[in-house]
Amino acid sequence: MKTLAEIFEHTLEDMYYAENAISKALPKVAKAATDAKLQKAAEDHLTETKDQIRKLELVFKSIGKKASGEKCDAIEGLIKETDGLIEETSGTALNAGLLAACQAVEHYEISRYGSLREWAKDLGHKDAHKLLSEILDQEKATNNKLTNLAVMSINKPGSTAKAA
Amino acid sequence: MKTLAEIFEHTLEDMYYAENAISKALPKVAKAATDAKLQKAAEDHLTETKDQIRKLELVFKSIGKKASGEKCDAIEGLIKETDGLIEETSGTALNAGLLAACQAVEHYEISRYGSLREWAKDLGHKDAHKLLSEILDQEKATNNKLTNLAVMSINKPGSTAKAA
Repeated sequence: MKTLAEIFEHTLEDMYYAENAISKALPKVAKAATDAKLQKAAEDHLTETKDQIRKLELVFKSIGKKASGEKCDAIEGLIKETDGLIEETSGTALNAGLLAACQAVEHYEISRYGSLREWAKDLGHKDAHKLLSEILDQEKATNNKLTNLAVMSINKPGSTAKAA
Repeated sequence: MKTLAEIFEHTLEDMYYAENAISKALPKVAKAATDAKLQKAAEDHLTETKDQIRKLELVFKSIGKKASGEKCDAIEGLIKETDGLIEETSGTALNAGLLAACQAVEHYEISRYGSLREWAKDLGHKDAHKLLSEILDQEKATNNKLTNLAVMSINKPGSTAKAA
């Protein structure tokens, strides 16, 4: 890869892979969580993730490419870490850990869509810029929702903990 | 792991491993980058990362534990992704990609220190809370610096691209 167009397309493929991997991981998080609000947040984010996969397909279409995924090492690592938590924790540690792990994934996505959105603008891909901005706003809103959930609900004495 | 104290300590060990891994990865980023300001940013962040490793050692000490690392799958994935970029890209794609990859790592750290800082507070670890808050602020400042670098300098026509 030498050009901005090439790294843009490569990173799109990474995120298409990542969103599909996240859509497979979220039901496991919802099943493992013992806090009802965290379960609901994971279920809601699954619906949103499926919408984001469709939006990414529209981004590919808008630049004349067929949607395809390329293995994304970062999301593999993040999901492996989450799987480890599900295996190794219970009680307070489980809900606090899962919430923090979900926020780590959100932060990864925020960084990636932030870069992709700006690259689309630089490349003059107006439709892609609009769609990627919509996804970025959704990811930021989800992260804020998770922070609020941690601070307001899960993080009570004897329960779990805040995340930021 | 069942308690908040256990997940706190486990995540501290993850981040101690992660910071040490980052300190080994940053010289590779500085060497590979062809943009002088990105090289300088990677070198500056290496100095900061070494300071953060010392701060983490103080956090361990403050809770009566010996500093130790535990393999962190997420940072392994993020660094593997960066190594792939160094191998597979050149020119515009290389600097834009490396800058975006550095921001992905910063976002990961921001999410982790955000959780750790709040857990320290919940656990009544005042010294740990202060030290972790200092590291979190440094990571946020580094991410902002990288965003500015992308927008103001690297991201010029014919050069590389913005990241956010």
